[in-house]
Formats: sequence, structure tokens, C-alpha cells
Amino acid sequence: MRLVRAGIDTYQQAVVYMHRDCAVCRAEGFNSLTRIRIRTADHELVAILNVVIDDRLALDVASLSEAAWIAMNPGPDEWATFSHPEPAASAQALRAKVFGQTLGDADFLALMRDTVDNRLSDIELAAFVTACAGDRLNREETTSLTRAMVAVGQRIDWGSGLVLDKHCVGGLPGNRTTPIVVAIVAAAGFRIPKTSSRAITSPAGTADTMEVMTHVALDLAAMQRVVERENGCIVWGGNVRLSPADDVLIRVERPLDFDSDGQLVASVLSKKVAAGSSHVLIDMPVGPTAKVRSDVAADALTTRLESTAREVGLALSVYRSDGRQPVGYGIGPTLEARDLLAVLRNKRDAPQDLRERALDLAGVLLDIAGQDGGRSGRSKAESLLDSGAALRKFLAICEAQGGFREPVPGLHIQPVNAARTGYLTDVDNRRLAKVAKLAGAPASAGAGIDFRLRLGDSVEIGEPLFHIYSDTPGELDYAIEYATANPDILSINESS
Amino acid sequence: MRLVRAGIDTYQQAVVYMHRDCAVCRAEGFNSLTRIRIRTADHELVAILNVVIDDRLALDVASLSEAAWIAMNPGPDEWATFSHPEPAASAQALRAKVFGQTLGDADFLALMRDTVDNRLSDIELAAFVTACAGDRLNREETTSLTRAMVAVGQRIDWGSGLVLDKHCVGGLPGNRTTPIVVAIVAAAGFRIPKTSSRAITSPAGTADTMEVMTHVALDLAAMQRVVERENGCIVWGGNVRLSPADDVLIRVERPLDFDSDGQLVASVLSKKVAAGSSHVLIDMPVGPTAKVRSDVAADALTTRLESTAREVGLALSVYRSDGRQPVGYGIGPTLEARDLLAVLRNKRDAPQDLRERALDLAGVLLDIAGQDGGRSGRSKAESLLDSGAALRKFLAICEAQGGFREPVPGLHIQPVNAARTGYLTDVDNRRLAKVAKLAGAPASAGAGIDFRLRLGDSVEIGEPLFHIYSDTPGELDYAIEYATANPDILSINESS
Repeated sequence: MRLVRAGIDTYQQAVVYMHRDCAVCRAEGFNSLTRIRIRTADHELVAILNVVIDDRLALDVASLSEAAWIAMNPGPDEWATFSHPEPAASAQALRAKVFGQTLGDADFLALMRDTVDNRLSDIELAAFVTACAGDRLNREETTSLTRAMVAVGQRIDWGSGLVLDKHCVGGLPGNRTTPIVVAIVAAAGFRIPKTSSRAITSPAGTADTMEVMTHVALDLAAMQRVVERENGCIVWGGNVRLSPADDVLIRVERPLDFDSDGQLVASVLSKKVAAGSSHVLIDMPVGPTAKVRSDVAADALTTRLESTAREVGLALSVYRSDGRQPVGYGIGPTLEARDLLAVLRNKRDAPQDLRERALDLAGVLLDIAGQDGGRSGRSKAESLLDSGAALRKFLAICEAQGGFREPVPGLHIQPVNAARTGYLTDVDNRRLAKVAKLAGAPASAGAGIDFRLRLGDSVEIGEPLFHIYSDTPGELDYAIEYATANPDILSINESS
Repeated sequence: MRLVRAGIDTYQQAVVYMHRDCAVCRAEGFNSLTRIRIRTADHELVAILNVVIDDRLALDVASLSEAAWIAMNPGPDEWATFSHPEPAASAQALRAKVFGQTLGDADFLALMRDTVDNRLSDIELAAFVTACAGDRLNREETTSLTRAMVAVGQRIDWGSGLVLDKHCVGGLPGNRTTPIVVAIVAAAGFRIPKTSSRAITSPAGTADTMEVMTHVALDLAAMQRVVERENGCIVWGGNVRLSPADDVLIRVERPLDFDSDGQLVASVLSKKVAAGSSHVLIDMPVGPTAKVRSDVAADALTTRLESTAREVGLALSVYRSDGRQPVGYGIGPTLEARDLLAVLRNKRDAPQDLRERALDLAGVLLDIAGQDGGRSGRSKAESLLDSGAALRKFLAICEAQGGFREPVPGLHIQPVNAARTGYLTDVDNRRLAKVAKLAGAPASAGAGIDFRLRLGDSVEIGEPLFHIYSDTPGELDYAIEYATANPDILSINESS
């Protein structure tokens, strides 16, 4: 049958629309939601069937959703053949993991191979993610999963010399230090090719934030050109496809809004190995409503990161930071971009906590990389930031990635005011992030929150606690409604 | 916006198609795969958005998939409003279960309420099913889940007197005793209102098998009329909606091909309680490739069934049966129907193992129900079958359900032959069932396997081991291919 474009966006899911009475459906016994293998001369894909039951679709065509159309990339009037896909090779491994068994290297390799080849449906991926949640992946399995994720993607070879990287385990709104750290470290002359993710469960990922200032969807060759010219880059990992299995898993992790230690480690370290990194610094914010909630949890995650890193040949250090409250003022892509530009530009009203944290991290990275015994990193970082060298490097990187543009926050703004007078004693980062997400972040780049209070600050009744920014009135209303219904997102008490 | 019918079958998933530039998408910031609440004067539904990016869809209409169209049932040109749904009330309970916590009554009630109200996406349902798999539901949780499933559906009140039921935990191909048992017990004058499921992971459920002979999609009122007239019925549970949450969960359990003890117990017992049963007999086949694989597993499941039944006020008995090989000749809806009719008609070539097992089960049920101390059930069952009373009752029940028709097996038939001479020593029920599924069962009712060898039987090289039936040549080829590639589905050895 001939392939046509359905013009329907089903996100990353490959869907094929066929008429109920078409020859293929009748001969093969296909029903709705059947998985179908589509083959052309050059491409092959497993897609989900949606059966069309009226006459809008001809009997001799198969219509592809956007994701399927892009993956198959058919020529004009190109024909395809359709068949039942063989059962996924990893089905048995998936079942074993769901029932609590321990998997080996070959199992994880089969699972990740089927993941990148689109042979697992979203509900199978959801089952896999759930079966690995909590403590259900042991250390050996974490290493096996990491290796499998590396094996099914590309791997960059930078030749000789150090290749640095910095990664935040996340969960802390506004903690957008990466672009500042990359700018400082690259300005110091070290190689730091940074790939970042889009938001999974947060109102913004580093890629979302960078995207309001420059292009981030570079492919591998373009990314390598940027790093050769400027030592560093900050691009979206999705187009580089360094750990393509991870990009697929995110599709179900995002709506489920949970991930596990084992998958977090495999996701992070597989990307570092594939990126050709030699030294990795992990920023781990710890706080009751951060991703890592306690020192006990931080110890467990640190041990797992360190042991897996050793197994896959990475030098890894963990920097544990304060995760009790947001960093910087902005939460959401554009508002966070505005903050980090203020720090790089040494503006008087730049958020000092963001500046200090970026300097700490850059200092540790410079110490790890340095030849002088590792003590002068922090002051070197400070002088590169204060001198404007870091700003120049950041703008040069943006230029190399396709040009810099100034971010513009959302136009619909409304304050959320204090219901009582007192001191800020506690911040629920998760629900605060939820307000930003309801306002439209990260899909609406200008949406989010501007939140400048810090623990111990005093506030008067009726004064703004924070401002909500949105690109549309509908989303603004929705975020306001949630914030109003949850006045305890910020705890205001009589004594600090 | 006006609601129109997309004419796209997405199975049970409610999907709404809207143009990327429509006013609602722009004002509300909706993206593909966003969950959207749709409201008309009378109906309300949460659906998944697929964004249409070409001009085939007008800007002022929202187009509904079949499942959404049926659920909303809009009048001509009816308008709807669209909004962000509030987060599912059960999201926190789901997350807690995924991370291994124990849930209480209120948590399960929230989960089942959101399940039947379509507020959970398929990947959230998949996460729930996975989080409950294996041993991850304890006994109290199993009872809570059972109660929650009952609470969100209807419940039949039959007035005074016994209400019997018989249920097989499944996993054994061809074990289609239910229609025979119902016919015998109803002929004996006892009330046995049987609701059955369609296949979840097997080539046929009792509802699939009955559907080739009569109507099974009766609603509750129609089912009650049948039982009042004939004492018994054998209908599909899905239209009766006795445990509607279970019907939704099956949507993800079917493609995942796994379910757990806790969910199995909750699924079975919630339906029995809702059906108003007082006494339930459970057929539990045990064998290495049946659903229950060992006596240890059978003990665990029996204990869980008994304790949950006690908690919800059911008298329950378990009949443990041989699960090493299929029962009867046929595997697949029509082929199994042919077998059970042969037994009811006392045909000479009827499968004796199916007859004996049905008599055993009917005998135990009659003993449970009887007033004579419970010993004469088996012989009473035998005389009702041999006299033709059971056949007359079966045909009367079919008549009451909408009329009886003779089943017709698939037209494409091919044998799979023995590759060596010897004795049948082992049967892999799961992979044998898979051959029947690849042949098209249960969706193609005539598809399946005719398998007459039994453990210990001898076979000559080149003789047929079994025959594959299919409604289409494509499916026949696919089943043959799998059977040929897996010659060890049946173990043939030199000594028996």
C-alpha cells in the first residue's frame, strides 16, 4: 500500500491508520492497537494500528502519524509492505523483571535494543520503568543497564586529553548552573561538551532553558564543530542520540512522573560514556522535597553512582548541595535564562545563590582537571566570571550553536499574595514546581514563576510571595487556582 | 467546539483530535498527548489529545475516536467545553504503590474510581498493574482492592436462596468446562448466573467461546431475565459491568500478558460479589506451564482466595485439577465450542477428559449446594448429562440469550507433523496457546488448534501432532512458522 501523511501529531508514538476493509487488514487479521511492521526499501518501523471505519481513508493507502512519517521518511508515492512483527526478543526479560527476577547483561541489551527499535509499546515501557522503580535494580543490574544503553547508541571519541562534564540529578527548581559552569570551564581552556535533557518531571530542563537563547537541537557533527571551536557546548541530547534508549524511556517517565535510582544512574552515566567524558561532577541537591530527600537517600545514590562509574571507566565526584529551596529567582525556561544571563553579566540584581553555587561547582571541576593539586579552582572560576571571560565564552558558544537571542518572559503575570504575616520556614519544591508546570512550563517557554523569598525572610500579609508568568490566560488561571487551593506550598510562621 | 466523529477505532482509548491552531489549543496550551476534560450537558470524559497539523480538520470542531464518541454520545451538532482535568485523585496512591508502599482502603477506592472514570492513562494503568505484580499486594491490600472494585460498579440482588458460581483461574488451553457445568447445575434446579471474561492472555475466554453459539453481550436486565427463566446464563461480563474497573484493567493486562495473584483474586472475587453469588467453586489447574505452576503456588493462591472470600462474605471452595496438558481437543473459540457440544450431545467421539472434568466440577458444586450431606453430586451430574437434560438446558439458555447457532471452524487448515517417533512426555501449554493466538484466536473465532494427543500417547514420525485452523492464509502462515521454529512445544521421547 502507498504511504501518505496523516498530519496527526501523536508525540513520539508511531501510529499507522488503515481502513478496516483494506486488503492488508483483512488478510493479516489486524485489529486496532495491533503492532505492525512497516517496510520500505530503506526503512523499517513497528507502529500501532488505528483502524479507520469511515470513507475518509482510501482502501489502498496507509496513513502515518508525524512520528512514523519522520521515521519512515518515504519518497513520493512510495509503497510499503506490512506484516506481523515477530514478538519482541525482550518480552521474556521484561516479564522476568516485572515478577521480581534479577536480569543480566544480555537481558538488558535485548530490552534496550527493542526500546530503540520501537518494538516495545508504551505500556510495555511503562511496565519496565515501574518494574525497575524504587530499589528493584541492584548494582550489577544498574551497570548492565548502563552498558546496554551505551551499546545501542553512538559514542564520541574526542582523541586524547580530558573531557569534563557536569550533571545535576535535578529536582530543585531554578537550579540552572550548567550554562554558567560550562562557560567558566570552557573559558579556562578545558573541553566540556555538555548534552542536556529537556524537562522530564520538572518545569524546565537545561535544554529547554538554553533553547530560549539559542539552537539546541544540533546533531552530532554540528555539536563536535562547536566544541572544536569553543571547547564547550550546551545542546539537547535528543538530536545527538548519544543514549537513544534513554530518549525513548523519557516518553513514559514524563507522564508517570517517577524515576528510580537505578534508571537515573543508567540514564546519566550512559550519556556521559557515550559523550566520551573522562571526568564527571554530579551536583546532588538534598532536601525534603528535592529529588534526593535525605542524607540516607543521598548516600545510597552516591554509592550507586560511584560503583557504576567505576565499572564503566568514568572518574566521578559528587557535590552535595542544599536542596531545601529553589535556586535563583526564576522557575521555567525563560525566567531561568534571565537569571543566568544576569549572573554572567555580573548584574547587581543577579541572584547571588545561583552565582555562588555555579562558582562552587566550576571550582570543583577546575580542581579535578587542574594540575596544581586541586585547590585554586574556586578563585580561578571567580576571576573568569568577574572579568567577563565567562560571558564572552557563553555568547561565543551560543553564536557557534546558531546565534544568541534575548529571552522574553510570558506576558500574563499575576502575583500570589501572603495570607498572613511571618517568616518563610519551609518550601515545598514539588508543588511549587507544579504551579510553574500548570502555568505552562516547559512547553510554554515564557511561563513559570518568579520567586525571590528565601528561608528565614519575613513577609507581610498581602505582599506577593511570588509571581506567576504565563503565555496564555487559560493557563494563568489554572496555575492561580492551584496555588490558591494550596496555600501551604510556602510555610509562613511567626518565628523563623 | 462542535463534536464530530473521527471514524477512527483506537480500541478502548478515548482520543480527541483537534487542530493545532484551534482556539482551545491556543488558549489552554494543549499539546499532543495532553489529557483533556470534555464536557457536554450530559456527559463528561477525559481523553488524550492528538494534534492535527493539516487542514483536513476545521478549526471549530473536535473530532472523537470511536471509544470517546460512544462514551460522550453527543446529539447532532452538540457543543462541548474543554479544560485541563484536575490531577487524578489517585496519583499519589499510584506513586506510593510503585515505590513499594502498602496501600489502604481509601487509596484503592480512589484508584478504582479514577480507573472507571477514565482519569488514568494506559501507561498509568500499566504502572499500577506492574506495581501490583508478583507478591506486591499483601492480603489486606487484596481485600481492599476487591472491595474497591465492587464499590465502583453495580451489584445484583437475587433475593433469598443460594446463588452458585464456578470459575477457572485459567492458563490451561481448551479447559472449557463452564458451559457444561452451568447447564448441569441449572438443570438440577439451582441458580447459577455466570458472567465470563473474554480472553486476557489466552486464545479463548468462555465469553469468546459462547459467542460463536449465541449472544453474550447482554446487559444486566437481559441477563436477569435469562436467569429468572432458565436458572442459569453464560454471558460476557463486560456489558453487565459488574466490575467495570476490572474491564478497564484488562485493556493493559492483555497486551502485557501478565497478571498477579492479588489482582487475579480481586478480579475474580469482585465479580462474584457484584454478581450476588453466595457459593463459589474455583477450578485451579496446576502444572509447570499452566497459570498456577506448582503446588506451592497453588497453596499461596488458595490461601489468598480463601482469606479474601471470608473477608467479603463468600463461601469458597477450590478444586485443584491436573494442569499438565490441554483439556479437550480444541484450542480457540469455535474449536472449543465444538468440543463442549459433543460432550453435551453425548457423542461417541466427544473428548472424555473434558466430560470427566466437567462432571467432577458440577458434582462438587451440587454437593456444596445440596441438602443430603454432600456425596451424591457426581452421580446426579452424570445422570443429568447422560439423560440429555443438560443439553436441553444449554440450548434453552442459548435460546433465552438470543438464539443458538452451530459453530463453524476456520477454513484454512494445516497439520504440524512429528519430527521423530516416540511418546509424548511433555506439553508447553503456553507456547501451544501462542500458536493458537498467532493463528488468530480469539479475534478470529474459527482460528486455533485441534490437538488430540495426550501425555503417554505414541506418535510416528511424519504423523500430525496437531492441526492449525485459521480464518486467513496470512495468519495460518504465521502460526505454522512459529510452530516449526519451536519443535519442542511438544516433547517426544523414546520412552514414555
